[in-house]
Amino acid sequence: MTAPVRVALIGSKFIASIHAESVRQCPAAELFAVASPGEGSAAAFAERFHIPHAFTDYRQMLAMPEIDLVIVGVPNFLHCQVTLDALSAGKHVLIEKPLCMNLREADEMIAAAAKAGRKLMYAEELCFAPKYVRLKQLLDSGALGTPTLLKQSEKHDGPHAAHFWDMERAGGGVTMDLGCHAIEFFRWMLGRPRITSVYAQMATQVHGDKTTGDDNALIILEFENGVTALAEESWTKLGGMDDRAEVYGSKGVAYADLLHGNSIETYSATGYDYAVEKAGSTVGWSFTIYEEAWNYGFLQEIAHFVDCVQHDKPPLVTAEDGRAVLEVIFAAYESARTGRKVSLPFSTDAAKPIDLWISPDPKPRP
Amino acid sequence: MTAPVRVALIGSKFIASIHAESVRQCPAAELFAVASPGEGSAAAFAERFHIPHAFTDYRQMLAMPEIDLVIVGVPNFLHCQVTLDALSAGKHVLIEKPLCMNLREADEMIAAAAKAGRKLMYAEELCFAPKYVRLKQLLDSGALGTPTLLKQSEKHDGPHAAHFWDMERAGGGVTMDLGCHAIEFFRWMLGRPRITSVYAQMATQVHGDKTTGDDNALIILEFENGVTALAEESWTKLGGMDDRAEVYGSKGVAYADLLHGNSIETYSATGYDYAVEKAGSTVGWSFTIYEEAWNYGFLQEIAHFVDCVQHDKPPLVTAEDGRAVLEVIFAAYESARTGRKVSLPFSTDAAKPIDLWISPDPKPRP
Amino acid sequence: MTAPVRVALIGSKFIASIHAESVRQCPAAELFAVASPGEGSAAAFAERFHIPHAFTDYRQMLAMPEIDLVIVGVPNFLHCQVTLDALSAGKHVLIEKPLCMNLREADEMIAAAAKAGRKLMYAEELCFAPKYVRLKQLLDSGALGTPTLLKQSEKHDGPHAAHFWDMERAGGGVTMDLGCHAIEFFRWMLGRPRITSVYAQMATQVHGDKTTGDDNALIILEFENGVTALAEESWTKLGGMDDRAEVYGSKGVAYADLLHGNSIETYSATGYDYAVEKAGSTVGWSFTIYEEAWNYGFLQEIAHFVDCVQHDKPPLVTAEDGRAVLEVIFAAYESARTGRKVSLPFSTDAAKPIDLWISPDPKPRP
Amino acid sequence: MTAPVRVALIGSKFIASIHAESVRQCPAAELFAVASPGEGSAAAFAERFHIPHAFTDYRQMLAMPEIDLVIVGVPNFLHCQVTLDALSAGKHVLIEKPLCMNLREADEMIAAAAKAGRKLMYAEELCFAPKYVRLKQLLDSGALGTPTLLKQSEKHDGPHAAHFWDMERAGGGVTMDLGCHAIEFFRWMLGRPRITSVYAQMATQVHGDKTTGDDNALIILEFENGVTALAEESWTKLGGMDDRAEVYGSKGVAYADLLHGNSIETYSATGYDYAVEKAGSTVGWSFTIYEEAWNYGFLQEIAHFVDCVQHDKPPLVTAEDGRAVLEVIFAAYESARTGRKVSLPFSTDAAKPIDLWISPDPKPRP
Repeated sequence: MTAPVRVALIGSKFIASIHAESVRQCPAAELFAVASPGEGSAAAFAERFHIPHAFTDYRQMLAMPEIDLVIVGVPNFLHCQVTLDALSAGKHVLIEKPLCMNLREADEMIAAAAKAGRKLMYAEELCFAPKYVRLKQLLDSGALGTPTLLKQSEKHDGPHAAHFWDMERAGGGVTMDLGCHAIEFFRWMLGRPRITSVYAQMATQVHGDKTTGDDNALIILEFENGVTALAEESWTKLGGMDDRAEVYGSKGVAYADLLHGNSIETYSATGYDYAVEKAGSTVGWSFTIYEEAWNYGFLQEIAHFVDCVQHDKPPLVTAEDGRAVLEVIFAAYESARTGRKVSLPFSTDAAKPIDLWISPDPKPRP
Repeated sequence: MTAPVRVALIGSKFIASIHAESVRQCPAAELFAVASPGEGSAAAFAERFHIPHAFTDYRQMLAMPEIDLVIVGVPNFLHCQVTLDALSAGKHVLIEKPLCMNLREADEMIAAAAKAGRKLMYAEELCFAPKYVRLKQLLDSGALGTPTLLKQSEKHDGPHAAHFWDMERAGGGVTMDLGCHAIEFFRWMLGRPRITSVYAQMATQVHGDKTTGDDNALIILEFENGVTALAEESWTKLGGMDDRAEVYGSKGVAYADLLHGNSIETYSATGYDYAVEKAGSTVGWSFTIYEEAWNYGFLQEIAHFVDCVQHDKPPLVTAEDGRAVLEVIFAAYESARTGRKVSLPFSTDAAKPIDLWISPDPKPRP
Repeated sequence: MTAPVRVALIGSKFIASIHAESVRQCPAAELFAVASPGEGSAAAFAERFHIPHAFTDYRQMLAMPEIDLVIVGVPNFLHCQVTLDALSAGKHVLIEKPLCMNLREADEMIAAAAKAGRKLMYAEELCFAPKYVRLKQLLDSGALGTPTLLKQSEKHDGPHAAHFWDMERAGGGVTMDLGCHAIEFFRWMLGRPRITSVYAQMATQVHGDKTTGDDNALIILEFENGVTALAEESWTKLGGMDDRAEVYGSKGVAYADLLHGNSIETYSATGYDYAVEKAGSTVGWSFTIYEEAWNYGFLQEIAHFVDCVQHDKPPLVTAEDGRAVLEVIFAAYESARTGRKVSLPFSTDAAKPIDLWISPDPKPRP
Repeated sequence: MTAPVRVALIGSKFIASIHAESVRQCPAAELFAVASPGEGSAAAFAERFHIPHAFTDYRQMLAMPEIDLVIVGVPNFLHCQVTLDALSAGKHVLIEKPLCMNLREADEMIAAAAKAGRKLMYAEELCFAPKYVRLKQLLDSGALGTPTLLKQSEKHDGPHAAHFWDMERAGGGVTMDLGCHAIEFFRWMLGRPRITSVYAQMATQVHGDKTTGDDNALIILEFENGVTALAEESWTKLGGMDDRAEVYGSKGVAYADLLHGNSIETYSATGYDYAVEKAGSTVGWSFTIYEEAWNYGFLQEIAHFVDCVQHDKPPLVTAEDGRAVLEVIFAAYESARTGRKVSLPFSTDAAKPIDLWISPDPKPRP
């Protein structure tokens, strides 16, 4: 029997806890270490998830030869450096979305992985969400005919952590944070044909007091095969996380609702512990989800990469895919500023996507 | 008791039968005459709906002094001339959507109504659809806070009558036919603030053998108050008519599904007479609607205009509104050609909206 | 043109306001008078609905020769006497459900109507609810094959008015109040075949502090044609009124949800005026209904009876139907007491249905 | 690291393939052998699932000392004998539902397990279905208050295999086949309080040509804590498997729909491979499920029992629970015959549940 893959986490916040849980449920993996700079963060996290080793300096952790695979869940502006360090320490890396801040960083990361001979997977969990996997099978089987329009959206009322709102650290608003999911979803669903153009409509409509980033966005892609794709993203949608996809084709149509659709419809006069991510109150009607990590594909994503590492297989989603997504995000901000459809390929020296966008004066909101 | 309003119909096809049924259910109105050029069409229609007078030449019908109100349901390219004739015959006119072929015609119609001192109502039934009326009340009451994004879509698998597919007679494809609903819906829902820009994505994806018009369209509007609106229109969506709206605001969100949402969920091994407009087969699962004309607001629309005529009130939707919608449609085709957001006001001498669009080579569809 | 039917209301509470609104929307009817015993009730009601005549003593009102039709919306124990008075005053009567307190009263009412030569309609609005009307058409058309099981349920968290909770005035609990809807729904849906047996499960589970009546009930009917029907009724279901029906047949199945199914799905952080009858709070998620009276069939019911009176037609639902429903209700309470299926016809001298039931000691509820 | 548990299957039909798939996805288990009497059945099954050993005689298989755990998926009338053989061969046994044909067999099986010192788990997968697990947490947390009514139903259009229709081999109809799920669901959901009474309504409404068993059933249970439970089961419901539960309480209500609710809503003009168990045609609208075994809890059930065996823990559902379910099934058939509520405990010498029921003459069905 093959030895389990030893996994280390960099980061100890929301996404890291999903990763830890996912690793724990993966029989082929062993949760070995965690690093997080905050005073006591790593130690507390290690205790919570029964992880033997905890570090405040991730570089020290990377020096442990027992570690095979590192999962990086840190603010966007650190993605590149941490990944480069992990690769040069000889680790396989799963890097959270979005890949990094800019295209130069992306190229460095790809080159570093090649040089190190290590796997660098881009963590787009929607490609592993079981409902969307079935949706792709429907499309691939011809059940819907030739696709005409794909839609995907992710909406909630805004991230918890401060770094998401700070454009210096995040690089972009909701287009960067949630739009990246839709873009890779479309590429994966269609077999990754070339994207020929991007149009985006963005605005800061509700959270102008907290951020200069976009809090609502619509993004339209055109693919070389004539398919249109529409991403709809929001940081201002109340009532809990919403994640949906639709596929329209010449012979049919399919609607897939990942959370709300699957939920238990609940009315509680008293409220209860938890309905779904960012649900707000659970008093009154709510839509209770279950096995959220499984429904999103987080468990399957981790299990897949562990399997890739263990049996030397190529990951389903690569750093090159992450770079392609990032290119679209840059083009989207360019489009939102100019009010024009932007052709791809799109190259830019911009340090981060948001730099290409100048938000119109936000309206005062009562 | 006030005398009933005498109503005449011009046209005897699909929409005319909805109008006839709506007039019949309006106690304040009397269905008095119908005109339709086809051999025997008017006579058959008159018999079916128990209408006392039938004409092949609508001009003869307009000469009847008993007629108070004319409802025009004819191909788009005839809207202007028929309306002008009816107004100059001293009739009040309810003109079907879209208002007419171009802005010059729109101005003529508005001027003619003013000159004749007769009411010219623009038939946007969605402003009377009871579910959408409630949705507007929710928004107006503040239940959803300040609006950020409005969505509306209408989708089916394409019109029956040939004139819709013929751009000379229709003036545009799905944007002209169904997009007009969404545009007035947005204006009405928001209290008709100024639209500042339009962006449109159009394609002929499935019906390239039948039409040079667009059969799928996405249209993004920006309003002066900072609200974004997204219209999604299709002539290629199978499985029956779909009509939905969503309102997102700073304090809430509301989803309204006019047909599918309200339907009886039916499984029939044998199939049955009718599920919903353009449902295709009713064998297997289908979504059976009921009182379709009421749910769409057709009955209420007719009753409203009859009341306006009877009691000299201004109609809820005017020819000026219809002109504003048409301006957006022109701007949408301009945008679809140029790939740019088009600022409003937009003026053009184009004879019809489609003239501003050059479809990219449609992809061959298997 | 026929003269409008002059309508008087007896009662000024919840159901009377629905009746008043329904009459107001009926062009063939004129809302002429209202009677209610409470100090100022009738006057206030008359002002609210612009009714010319108001009475505290309904007998005085019945003396007005101008009145053609009386709608009775009073506590159950008064149904019989008020109806007899109205009939003997020469009025046509629409009597609210349930018909009356016992079978002797039912027989008296039926005889009185015959003797007076006046129409006595039993107000089961579900037979006019447009969604259920369509459901019946589906079944009648053979789309579902031969029926096997019918279900209907009505659920909310309990009535507002005190007389519903008081068994002396109401005659029964939720089976009497809501079960009567389901029983006539089943009879109507199937073309009124003979019911051969009734089984009922009842309990006082939540409102033992307020009532000795049943607050939850399941009722199973067998029809002579082999169809089973299941009624599910509750006075303890939170989150707003729920009214659903299902029809299962050898060739298909159909699900119809009258309120929740049709609603606008709303999330409001602030709450708003009204979602649906007995919704409780509207903060958070709620299911907003629209045109409630129309969806329930109240408008259509009134319009139908006005038409019956105006054109001397037999009503769709008669006092004989109301008596048949009452017989089933008595049998249901008998069954709930004995734990046995009760065969029909069932005759009893009991003064009211609840007398046949002895509630088991209600469990204390925390 | 603990050695994997070696699993053998008895049976090679529908349920066995679900078990095989579930074992394959369980890292702690190893699929070691399969036995099935049909010519070549076991060999074909073994090849399909890569199982090293195949037998036509399960007794030969039981002689293999390497086998730790046996999963029994055979017709009901063989449950007892096969289980006894497996236990006496020293194997732990997972026995499919229903436990066996009668109470004497149940007692024998329980005694045999005790004597052999081996675990005998009763396979009620609904106790592992993740949506229902979450539903139970909601109830246990107090979110719904004190429960009043529980509902659960499972419906499809009838089993594939002949032995289900043959009362000699099955022991009962839909109450035996699907009712058993609901009964254990209720017990588990409520923490297994005592059931005090059972009432059942059964009929053979559609499949009288194929079976003398009940093809539709309603079953009402009363629990000692005052909760009512309603099971609704059908072998005549078209349009695909349906599995739903509802929990009503004094402080709230929750609706959980296992399949239809979670599905992708699909319209396909061409049809496709598979929507859901017993879906019938996939042309037109259908409700596409994904990861069916996971959603039902089959994977989790197997993983749980493997864990129980590996780490000597008591299973969540035991043979004693299976016996309690069987007692209710007998009482249900007794009730359906007598038209009376039957008190529990209920003892009977009947050889199989159906013996207590005499079906009324089935109506001829067109």
